[in-house]
Amino acid sequence: MTKNTNIRISLPAVCFVWQIAMIILFGVFVRYNEESDTHWIEYKRRKNISTNLENDFYYRYASFQDVHVMIFVGFGFLMTFLKRYSFGGVGFNFLIAAFGIQWALLMQGWFHYLDSDDWKIKIGIENLINADFCVAGCLIAYGACLGKVSPVQLMVLTLFGVTLFAVEEYIILELLHAKDAGGSMIIHTFGAYYGLTISWILYRPLLSQSKNYQGSVYHSDVFAMIGTLFLWMFWPSFNSAIADHGDGQHRAVINTYLALASSVLTTFAISSLSQKHGKLDMVHIQNATLAGGVAMGTASEFMITPYGSLIVGFCSGIVSTLGYLFLTPFMEKTLKIQDTCGIHNLHGMPGVIGGIVGAITAASASESVYGKEGLINTFDFKDAVANRTVSIQGGHQAAGLCVAIAFGLAGGALVGGILKLPIWGDPADGNCFDDEVYWEVPEDEDENIPASRHPNMNHVRSMEDVYQRSNV
Amino acid sequence: MTKNTNIRISLPAVCFVWQIAMIILFGVFVRYNEESDTHWIEYKRRKNISTNLENDFYYRYASFQDVHVMIFVGFGFLMTFLKRYSFGGVGFNFLIAAFGIQWALLMQGWFHYLDSDDWKIKIGIENLINADFCVAGCLIAYGACLGKVSPVQLMVLTLFGVTLFAVEEYIILELLHAKDAGGSMIIHTFGAYYGLTISWILYRPLLSQSKNYQGSVYHSDVFAMIGTLFLWMFWPSFNSAIADHGDGQHRAVINTYLALASSVLTTFAISSLSQKHGKLDMVHIQNATLAGGVAMGTASEFMITPYGSLIVGFCSGIVSTLGYLFLTPFMEKTLKIQDTCGIHNLHGMPGVIGGIVGAITAASASESVYGKEGLINTFDFKDAVANRTVSIQGGHQAAGLCVAIAFGLAGGALVGGILKLPIWGDPADGNCFDDEVYWEVPEDEDENIPASRHPNMNHVRSMEDVYQRSNV
Amino acid sequence: MTKNTNIRISLPAVCFVWQIAMIILFGVFVRYNEESDTHWIEYKRRKNISTNLENDFYYRYASFQDVHVMIFVGFGFLMTFLKRYSFGGVGFNFLIAAFGIQWALLMQGWFHYLDSDDWKIKIGIENLINADFCVAGCLIAYGACLGKVSPVQLMVLTLFGVTLFAVEEYIILELLHAKDAGGSMIIHTFGAYYGLTISWILYRPLLSQSKNYQGSVYHSDVFAMIGTLFLWMFWPSFNSAIADHGDGQHRAVINTYLALASSVLTTFAISSLSQKHGKLDMVHIQNATLAGGVAMGTASEFMITPYGSLIVGFCSGIVSTLGYLFLTPFMEKTLKIQDTCGIHNLHGMPGVIGGIVGAITAASASESVYGKEGLINTFDFKDAVANRTVSIQGGHQAAGLCVAIAFGLAGGALVGGILKLPIWGDPADGNCFDDEVYWEVPEDEDENIPASRHPNMNHVRSMEDVYQRSNV
Repeated sequence: MTKNTNIRISLPAVCFVWQIAMIILFGVFVRYNEESDTHWIEYKRRKNISTNLENDFYYRYASFQDVHVMIFVGFGFLMTFLKRYSFGGVGFNFLIAAFGIQWALLMQGWFHYLDSDDWKIKIGIENLINADFCVAGCLIAYGACLGKVSPVQLMVLTLFGVTLFAVEEYIILELLHAKDAGGSMIIHTFGAYYGLTISWILYRPLLSQSKNYQGSVYHSDVFAMIGTLFLWMFWPSFNSAIADHGDGQHRAVINTYLALASSVLTTFAISSLSQKHGKLDMVHIQNATLAGGVAMGTASEFMITPYGSLIVGFCSGIVSTLGYLFLTPFMEKTLKIQDTCGIHNLHGMPGVIGGIVGAITAASASESVYGKEGLINTFDFKDAVANRTVSIQGGHQAAGLCVAIAFGLAGGALVGGILKLPIWGDPADGNCFDDEVYWEVPEDEDENIPASRHPNMNHVRSMEDVYQRSNV
Repeated sequence: MTKNTNIRISLPAVCFVWQIAMIILFGVFVRYNEESDTHWIEYKRRKNISTNLENDFYYRYASFQDVHVMIFVGFGFLMTFLKRYSFGGVGFNFLIAAFGIQWALLMQGWFHYLDSDDWKIKIGIENLINADFCVAGCLIAYGACLGKVSPVQLMVLTLFGVTLFAVEEYIILELLHAKDAGGSMIIHTFGAYYGLTISWILYRPLLSQSKNYQGSVYHSDVFAMIGTLFLWMFWPSFNSAIADHGDGQHRAVINTYLALASSVLTTFAISSLSQKHGKLDMVHIQNATLAGGVAMGTASEFMITPYGSLIVGFCSGIVSTLGYLFLTPFMEKTLKIQDTCGIHNLHGMPGVIGGIVGAITAASASESVYGKEGLINTFDFKDAVANRTVSIQGGHQAAGLCVAIAFGLAGGALVGGILKLPIWGDPADGNCFDDEVYWEVPEDEDENIPASRHPNMNHVRSMEDVYQRSNV
Repeated sequence: MTKNTNIRISLPAVCFVWQIAMIILFGVFVRYNEESDTHWIEYKRRKNISTNLENDFYYRYASFQDVHVMIFVGFGFLMTFLKRYSFGGVGFNFLIAAFGIQWALLMQGWFHYLDSDDWKIKIGIENLINADFCVAGCLIAYGACLGKVSPVQLMVLTLFGVTLFAVEEYIILELLHAKDAGGSMIIHTFGAYYGLTISWILYRPLLSQSKNYQGSVYHSDVFAMIGTLFLWMFWPSFNSAIADHGDGQHRAVINTYLALASSVLTTFAISSLSQKHGKLDMVHIQNATLAGGVAMGTASEFMITPYGSLIVGFCSGIVSTLGYLFLTPFMEKTLKIQDTCGIHNLHGMPGVIGGIVGAITAASASESVYGKEGLINTFDFKDAVANRTVSIQGGHQAAGLCVAIAFGLAGGALVGGILKLPIWGDPADGNCFDDEVYWEVPEDEDENIPASRHPNMNHVRSMEDVYQRSNV
C-alpha cells in the first residue's frame, strides 16, 4: 500500500501563503517597542534612565540566545536519533519553528502586548523569548508524531498549536495569575498532551511495517546527544529567561542547574537497573536526564531551596526513566498511542510534576522565608491580586495545570481530527521513519568511491568476479 | 596525472614564519586599550564612570562569543557536507581563521584603532569582534574553493583577503561614512566576489574526475546542519554585535531574527517546488535559509520595521534557492566558475540585496520615524558629516556596495593569479574533495572490528568462502 | 579472559546512595546567597545598590554558560573520537560531571563560602562556575583512563578528585594567596597528574588486545572536532569567568583569545612537519590547538601583553604536539602509563607551562606597568598580604604549582590503589574501548534496512545467490 506523499503543491502553497499572511499581519500590527525604537534615547531621558544597560536587552539577551539554541539545535538534534529520519528530525523542526515564532509573535502579541493607544503590538527581546517558548510546545508535540506525519501536517499542527498556546497562556498567566516562568504547565504539559492526543487520533495499526526504521544506529545516537546536551546545559537559561530581574533570574538558574544534575544520576541508576547485565540505554540518557529541567519549570523562581531542587530532579529522573521502560510500551499496546520520542515521559509526566511542585511551593510560601517585599515581588501580589494569600495562589497554580492539560487534550482532539483528513500527504504505514519520502537522500557512502581506496569495496568487487565465474 | 601535494615544507614554513611575524608586529604595535588595561580603575574615576558594567566588555561579550561560534563551528561545520572532505572543511577553516584573526587585529588596527599619541593599536572586545568579522570574508571565499586548494593556498588567500578587507572597510566606513553593522557589503559581498574570482582563475576543466567525491553522504549532511543552525541562531548576534548600545543592538536583533525566519519558509517552498515529487534538497536547507541574515546585514540597525525585515527574508530566501537551482550550474558550465559551496547564492546575491536594501532604507529615513536625535544617532550624522541628508547617505551606501564588489573582483583577480603559480601543492583534478591528500585518514569503520560482531562482515567472510569454493 | 563487568547493582547503588547523600547534605548546609535570595531587594536597598544589574549574575552568567558548554559538550565530544566508545565518552562524562558539580558545591562551599554566622554555604552564580571548574579536573583525569574503566570507577575517581581539588584549591588560593583565574595549576596540572598516576597504577600490560578499537573512524573524528571547537571558542570565557569585574575579565579574554590562535598555527606546523608527506594528524588538531588556552590559565588576568600571549600560545602548541609525537609512545612503552587522550600533552605540560608563566609574569609585575591601584587590584594585595612584593608573589605562584603537582601525584596514587580493587566491574584487557560492555549498542546501520533501498545490500543479496549457486 502506497499513499500519495507528493507535497510539491501543498508544501510550497502553505509556506508561501502563510508567510505572505505573516508579512501583511506584521505590517498592520507589529512595531518596535520603546526599547528597540530609535526614540529610546528620548524615552531614556524622559524616564531618567541613566544607562543603556537598563535596556531590557542586556538583562535577557544571553538567555535568549541560549533558549534559541535549545529550540533549533536542542530539539532539532534530539530528534535525529532515528537511523534514517535525521533530515526530517532536524529539518522539519527548523521549518515549523521558523514559522511558529512569527505566528507566536502575533498571537501572544494580541493577548499580552497590544498597545491600547494605537492597537499595535510593540515587540522587544522578551517577545522573542516568549515566541521561542511558544514554539517549544509545538516541537514537543512533534516529538510524538516524529516520522509519521508530513511537513504540511506539521505546519497545521504548529498553526493551531501556537494559537491554542496563546489562549491557554493568557488564561493561566493573566486570568488565573499563576506563575510559570519555565513553563512546566504552559509549555511542557500542554505540548505533551497536545501531541499525544494527536498521535492517538492518528493511530497507525500497521506501523510495525516500518519497524526496521524505528531505531537508531551508532552515529545517530551520538547526534542525538548533541541535542540532549544543549538542552541540558541551557535549561537554566530557559527557566530564567523571563524571570524577574535580579534575584529571580539568579535563583531560577541555581534551582534548574541542581534539579538537572540530580535527574542525571537517577536516570543512569534506573537505566542500569532495568537491564539484565546493567547496561545503559541511550534512549534514557538522551531524554530522562532532562526531566529535572522540565519539572523545575514552574517553581524555578520560588524559594524551593537548593535541596528541594535536588529532590525534584531525583524524582522526575526516576519517573521519566520508568516511563520509557513501562509506560510507553503500555500506551502503545493498550491505549493505542504511538509516541515516537516518548514525550509523555520527558514532558508529560515531568511537566505535571512541575505544576504540582509549583502549586505546593507557592502554597507553602511564607513571609518569614521570602521577606515581605520578596513575597510580593515573587508572586506579583499587586493591583488586582494585591490581597491574594499564598494558599489561594497555590490553588490557582493547580487550576493552571488543569487548564494546560485540558487545552492539550481538547486542542489535540480538534487538530488530530483535522490532520486525519486524507489530503496532507502523510506516509503509508510502511514508509514511516524514512527520509526518502520527503527528502532527496544522498547515495550510500561507499557506492561511488573508487574501490581501490575502500577495503570493503574490494571485497564487493571480487564478489562480482565470483558471481561471473560461478555463472560460467 | 598526479601533482606534488607534499606540503611538509611549505605549510610549516608559512605557519611558523607568519606566526613569528605576528608576534613581532604585536610586540611593536599592539597594547590593551583603556578598558582592558589595569589602569581602568583610574580611567573610570577620571571619566566619572560609576560601575564596571559600563566597560564595553559587558555590552558586547555575549554577542562576541556567538560570533566566535559562527566563525569556527558555523562556517566550519557548514563545510563538512562533502562525503570525504569533512576534515578539510572544518580543519582548514580552523587554521585560516586562527591566522586571520591575528592579522586582522593588526590590519584593522592600523586603519581604525591607531592611537595617534604613541602609534600603538589599543585593543578591546570590539577589536576581537571586528577581527572575527574580517575573517568571515575569507571563510566565505574558502567556500568557493572548498576541496580544490591546498592549505598553503588558503593561508595566502587569507593573508591577502584580510588586507583587502581592511582597506575596503576603511573606505566604506570611514571615507564614505556608510553604515554596515552586519557587513552585507563589507563582509558578504566582498567575500563572495573575492572567492568567486579566485575560483574562476583557478578553473579546473577536468574537475569531473573528482565527481565521485563531490557530494554528501547521509551523516555528512547532518554534520553540515550543525553549521547551518549555529549560523542561523547566532546571526542576530552577528548583525548586532557592533551596533549602537541600547536600541541599536536591540533592533538589529529583532530585524535579523525576523528576516531569518522568513527566509526559512521560502527556501523550503522553492526547494520542494523545484523537484518532481516535491522532495526537499538538503543543499538548499543548509544554505538558503541563511540568506535572510546576510541580506539584513546593512539595514539591521535601521528602522526597517518588522514587516520590512520579513519581506527582505522572503525575497532573499527565494533568490538564494533559485540560485542553487539555476545559477550555479550555469556559472559552472558557461562562466567557468566552480563554486563548491554555492557562495554566490548564500553570500553574493543576498549580500548585494542587503547593500541595496540598506541604501534604500537609509535614503527613505525621516525625522518623523526616527526622531531628531534618533536619526543623528543611527547614522552618526556628527562632525564632518553633521549636515549630510538621508538621500546623500543613501547614495554613499550604494557607493559602498560598489566598492565592495570592486575590491572583491580586483582582489580576487590578483590573488587568483598568485595562487595559480605551481608551487602551492594543490591537488590534481582527480584528487579534489578528498581528505586523503592532506590528512591522515583513519581506516574504514568496519575493517578492524572482529567479524563476529558485525553482521556485514559475516557476509564478507562468507563471500570469501564462496570465492575459494567457486575457484575450485 | 573475561571479567565480570555487570554493574547492575553497583552503578545504581552508587548513584542512588550518593545522590541521596547530596540531598541530605544540601538540606543541612546549602542556601541561596544574598544575590539569589528573595531578600535581594532589601539587601540592595541596604547596600545602596541602584540597579539589579549589579547582581553578580549579570557579570558572570554569559561566561558561566560558556563554561558549562565546555564541561558537557567540550570535554564530552572531545572524547567521542574512538570508533566504538563514543557513548562512553560523552555519556560517562555527562554522568560524572553531573555528580561532581553537586559534590563540588559542597566541598568548595565548606572551604570557601561557609557563612560563619549560621554555618551554611551560601551559593550564587560564582559557585556554579567554580563547581564546573572543579569537575573539569576530574574530566581531564578521565581522559587518561578513557575506555579502560567502569562508570563506577569513574564515580569514585570523581568523588576523590573533587575532594582533593577543593583542598588543593584552598591551599593554593587561600593559604598561598596565589592567583589562578583559569586554573593552569589548580585545574589542568592537578587533573593531568591525578589522571596519569591513576592510569599508571591501573596499567594494563595486555591492552594491545583491544587495539582494533583504539582508534578513530572518519565520522568519530568529526564528532570530536565538535568538542575541540567548543572548548577552543569558549576558552576565553573559561579563563575570565571568575576574573575581576571590569578590566580583569576583559584582559583575560583578550590574552586567551590570542594564545589560542597562536597555538593553532604551531600545531598545524608541527603536525605537518612530523609526517613523511606532510599530512596532518587529526589527533594533534583536536588537542594541541587547545594548549594555548591551558597555558594562559594563570596569567590571563595579568598584564602579560598581547604579544606575550602569542608567545605562550606559540610555545605550548609546539610542546603539546611534540608530546603526542614522542612523549606519549615513550610514556606508554617505558613508563607504563597508558594515556588514552594524551592528557599529559594537552593539560599536563601546558598546565605546568602556564604555572611557570604565571609565576614569572607575577614576579616581573611593576607599578609602572600596572599602576599603583591596578597592581593592588590584580594581585589582591590587601589585608593579610597588603605588603607582599611581586617577587614574593612570584615565589608563591611557583609554590602553588608544586602543590598542584604533589596533590595530583599523591591523590592519584591513593585513588589508583582504591580503583585497583577487583570489585568495580572494569573491562578485561580485550574489551577496552568498546561500548558493548556498558551500553545497549544499536544494531549496525545496514542490517535491517530492506536491500532494495541500499545498493550495497544488493551486492550482498546477489552474493548470497552466488553462495547458493556455487554450492550446487
